[in-house]
Amino acid sequence: MGSKYPPSMRGCLPLWTLLLVVAFIVIFFFFTSYDTSSQDPKELTDTYRVLQDVTIMMALGFGFINSSLRRYGWSSMAFNLFLLALTVQWAVLLNGFLEQLSPQKVVIKLSSIKLATMSAMSVLISAGAVLGKANLVQLVLMALVEVTAFGVMRMIQAKYFVKDDHVNMMHIHVFAAYFGLMVAWSFRRPLHGRMMEKYQTEKRSSLFGMLGTLFLWIFWPSFNSALLPNERKNAMFNTYYALAVSTVTAISVSSLAHPQGKINMHHIHNAVLAGGVAVGTSCYLIRSPWLAMVLGLVAGLISTGGALSLTMRFNNMLDLHDTSGVYYTFGLPGLLGEIAHIVLITLQDDWTKSTRFGLKPQNMERTSYV
Amino acid sequence: MGSKYPPSMRGCLPLWTLLLVVAFIVIFFFFTSYDTSSQDPKELTDTYRVLQDVTIMMALGFGFINSSLRRYGWSSMAFNLFLLALTVQWAVLLNGFLEQLSPQKVVIKLSSIKLATMSAMSVLISAGAVLGKANLVQLVLMALVEVTAFGVMRMIQAKYFVKDDHVNMMHIHVFAAYFGLMVAWSFRRPLHGRMMEKYQTEKRSSLFGMLGTLFLWIFWPSFNSALLPNERKNAMFNTYYALAVSTVTAISVSSLAHPQGKINMHHIHNAVLAGGVAVGTSCYLIRSPWLAMVLGLVAGLISTGGALSLTMRFNNMLDLHDTSGVYYTFGLPGLLGEIAHIVLITLQDDWTKSTRFGLKPQNMERTSYV
Amino acid sequence: MGSKYPPSMRGCLPLWTLLLVVAFIVIFFFFTSYDTSSQDPKELTDTYRVLQDVTIMMALGFGFINSSLRRYGWSSMAFNLFLLALTVQWAVLLNGFLEQLSPQKVVIKLSSIKLATMSAMSVLISAGAVLGKANLVQLVLMALVEVTAFGVMRMIQAKYFVKDDHVNMMHIHVFAAYFGLMVAWSFRRPLHGRMMEKYQTEKRSSLFGMLGTLFLWIFWPSFNSALLPNERKNAMFNTYYALAVSTVTAISVSSLAHPQGKINMHHIHNAVLAGGVAVGTSCYLIRSPWLAMVLGLVAGLISTGGALSLTMRFNNMLDLHDTSGVYYTFGLPGLLGEIAHIVLITLQDDWTKSTRFGLKPQNMERTSYV
Repeated sequence: MGSKYPPSMRGCLPLWTLLLVVAFIVIFFFFTSYDTSSQDPKELTDTYRVLQDVTIMMALGFGFINSSLRRYGWSSMAFNLFLLALTVQWAVLLNGFLEQLSPQKVVIKLSSIKLATMSAMSVLISAGAVLGKANLVQLVLMALVEVTAFGVMRMIQAKYFVKDDHVNMMHIHVFAAYFGLMVAWSFRRPLHGRMMEKYQTEKRSSLFGMLGTLFLWIFWPSFNSALLPNERKNAMFNTYYALAVSTVTAISVSSLAHPQGKINMHHIHNAVLAGGVAVGTSCYLIRSPWLAMVLGLVAGLISTGGALSLTMRFNNMLDLHDTSGVYYTFGLPGLLGEIAHIVLITLQDDWTKSTRFGLKPQNMERTSYV
Repeated sequence: MGSKYPPSMRGCLPLWTLLLVVAFIVIFFFFTSYDTSSQDPKELTDTYRVLQDVTIMMALGFGFINSSLRRYGWSSMAFNLFLLALTVQWAVLLNGFLEQLSPQKVVIKLSSIKLATMSAMSVLISAGAVLGKANLVQLVLMALVEVTAFGVMRMIQAKYFVKDDHVNMMHIHVFAAYFGLMVAWSFRRPLHGRMMEKYQTEKRSSLFGMLGTLFLWIFWPSFNSALLPNERKNAMFNTYYALAVSTVTAISVSSLAHPQGKINMHHIHNAVLAGGVAVGTSCYLIRSPWLAMVLGLVAGLISTGGALSLTMRFNNMLDLHDTSGVYYTFGLPGLLGEIAHIVLITLQDDWTKSTRFGLKPQNMERTSYV
Repeated sequence: MGSKYPPSMRGCLPLWTLLLVVAFIVIFFFFTSYDTSSQDPKELTDTYRVLQDVTIMMALGFGFINSSLRRYGWSSMAFNLFLLALTVQWAVLLNGFLEQLSPQKVVIKLSSIKLATMSAMSVLISAGAVLGKANLVQLVLMALVEVTAFGVMRMIQAKYFVKDDHVNMMHIHVFAAYFGLMVAWSFRRPLHGRMMEKYQTEKRSSLFGMLGTLFLWIFWPSFNSALLPNERKNAMFNTYYALAVSTVTAISVSSLAHPQGKINMHHIHNAVLAGGVAVGTSCYLIRSPWLAMVLGLVAGLISTGGALSLTMRFNNMLDLHDTSGVYYTFGLPGLLGEIAHIVLITLQDDWTKSTRFGLKPQNMERTSYV
């Protein structure tokens, strides 16, 4: 747990966080109330299930995906849970205030907690890049700043650009990857000689890492369809196909890169999820499986390719160490997804101008499309 | 697996349990039938999902939470599954007979299995206190006695005191903690010298313990809302908030207690769940998040505090060893929850007398409150 | 990962699989389209949840159940995920073409992916029997052949014999066990002297194996009721009871077989699931719990008994090594299930001829029975 820091600095963690907890309780006391409107019980159950899926991804998925690092297995789990529990509380408040932009009471719905848990993902992704470099006080600070920045960004987008919750949320991968790399870069000093040992992985606990990967893999369709009101079916389909193809691609390419054809477990941890990330933004737009599969193929290639070729360059040229490969897992596939989304939106606008057939334009017909 | 016991005693396990299984089959043959009424398929699906969540908590959560003990990793898993499978069968029969109090056929519904699985939790909690002290024959005996006692207690309460299924079930934490401690006390003889080694944990498998903790953490809102017909939304909200705050509190206090600010994994296993336990009984009554958060804060403090200060005293003064810290995880937070419930019910009765505004009285309007 | 094979053979894996992926994309491009009919959102959610449960079983359950083998922990996980992702894509296409038997476009529904994931189980079961004998190229070949054979078998059955999707799918256990054993037999040469070491298990990672077993155990009721339109309630009930009884039986008999009464973890991995397999085919027919419990009891006995007595005979007489005990886990209990199904169908036909009371005949009234 990074015992490099002077005890005084670590000592202030309990004080800080307990103060933070008390501050949250006071803010919740004055500024929030539960949603008391009667709701369709089926809809409640449905929202609850999606919230549960997302919580599984955050607590189990991100908790275990970094546990294969030799020295950080345990602390990455504990930090992850801590950051999740703290960030969700702050994100509920923040999203509530940003949405109404007035000092009224924030009404907390089950979907507020769902949105807050999804926003917390940005912190958990970034934490992967700085793991082993920052202590828990620094991580708490990072979490509060990052969730606030992401919330403000989403609010500005929703007010002035795209009104779509889903699209705004899906920028999270690219945002979190670059935010994490930036933080990692600012901590870039050490990492020579014996420090390298910190980043070694263990064969045994790579099974734990695989456990985390699989939880993310299984519940990714839930994540990609969580904020879609109507087009959920296509989002599920496309995420399934993109994940399947990126998995096959990543394992094949990993075997190609090894002189004896062995499969590198790091490539799998990273690249298996690349398909889900790449298809995220545009998963509601794609109307036939082959396009999702192509995205999954390209995502698997660039993610494994990035892990193979860029790791050393990052270390040497930028003096930057991306502990758990956040850039290949979320950054590059996320960029691919953004580009694919822009291309699809453009093509679709062209198509709707020329023919009546094909993909629906997003902003105009979205809400009326049942 | 406690090889202290004479072979003759261990030898009778298969005989006993196979006889028990055959006895169950005979009882089921004569005294039960499946519910043949046609049911709304949506409602069936919903009950099934809650049952699944509860089964995940019992099989995976309790299975893994004690697997970090060095010598009992494997046997705690196997015993847990064995006790769960056996107890559910007995609890279905018992709850059925106690409910109708007549020798008619018991009609088994999906909700009977849900109730039986929840009742089985008492056995799994108590087993944590006697782990490493009792052999499997003794555990089977304990399971049958405990589930019967808990079922009779619930039946008496439902007949003469509170009619509310949810409140009656939520006494389970306190009941199981004291029952387990009592059994542990009756086995208190050994535990000196080399026996201490039995209670050491392993760093590696503490990740398994964390896996169990996380499964319980994620599905606790399902448990707390499983028997509520209408107020499920508030129960989910409050459990989420109480768990989040108790997690942050427990990790902070654990770091405070360590001279170098390190986080003790045992405190996390215990205290992270304290919020969910404490908020259990009154989760349907609380109408704004701050109260759930305060309960989570206090529960996190007393649970970590208890683990820090009471462990040694238990060992020395009472000659009692609570193997997996059942008292701090379920006993103390459960007591806090009971007190909070009594206070809330009293306050609410006062409020409803003076104003028409506010919390609903529990017993009178509960059933008509949609 | 079986480094016995010449590099040239391993080298062709990436080429092969990438070609396969591209071929799939081309076929999907020309021959498939998504289902665009508007669907009841509740029904969609329900199908999605069942698909999710089945995916958890395949990815986590089968991924971890074989991870306790000392040398194959990691590769069994990676191979499992690879085979799952590849097989699902092929099975969706295959089932679509077989269903319509014409070169029209295949319409992909969420239930097509569910069916494909369930069909992929046959590959994952068989892979358990040849683990450590075949390399990944051979496994890919086996997967394609096996899924095609199983799909054709199901299609022929559906056309000419039983029209019931559920019954046709439930032959999967027996089919996959014998297919796997046949493949294992064709690889039977090595396995003497130091090769034995390959099949040793580790105590530590047997907790991982248990994790896989528990995921299968918990979600088995979902699997057994996944293809039933109406009788899902009985299927869930019966699977729960059969699993509970086979668990208790397996653990008891395992303890009986050990001279000191210890529980063998292998027996648990195998026999705990036997009840779910045995009750699979007839789970919708059984109308009271005792019959499911008797099936669970017998399945637990033959599965543990098989593991105790047949392992050596297989090795010595047939020169056959069934790496992860597929024959006792799926083969024998599956045969028991088939026999039980035939007996129940016969009895039921007799009953419906003589009385109007009792079990419904399957083929005639099935579809009209709401």
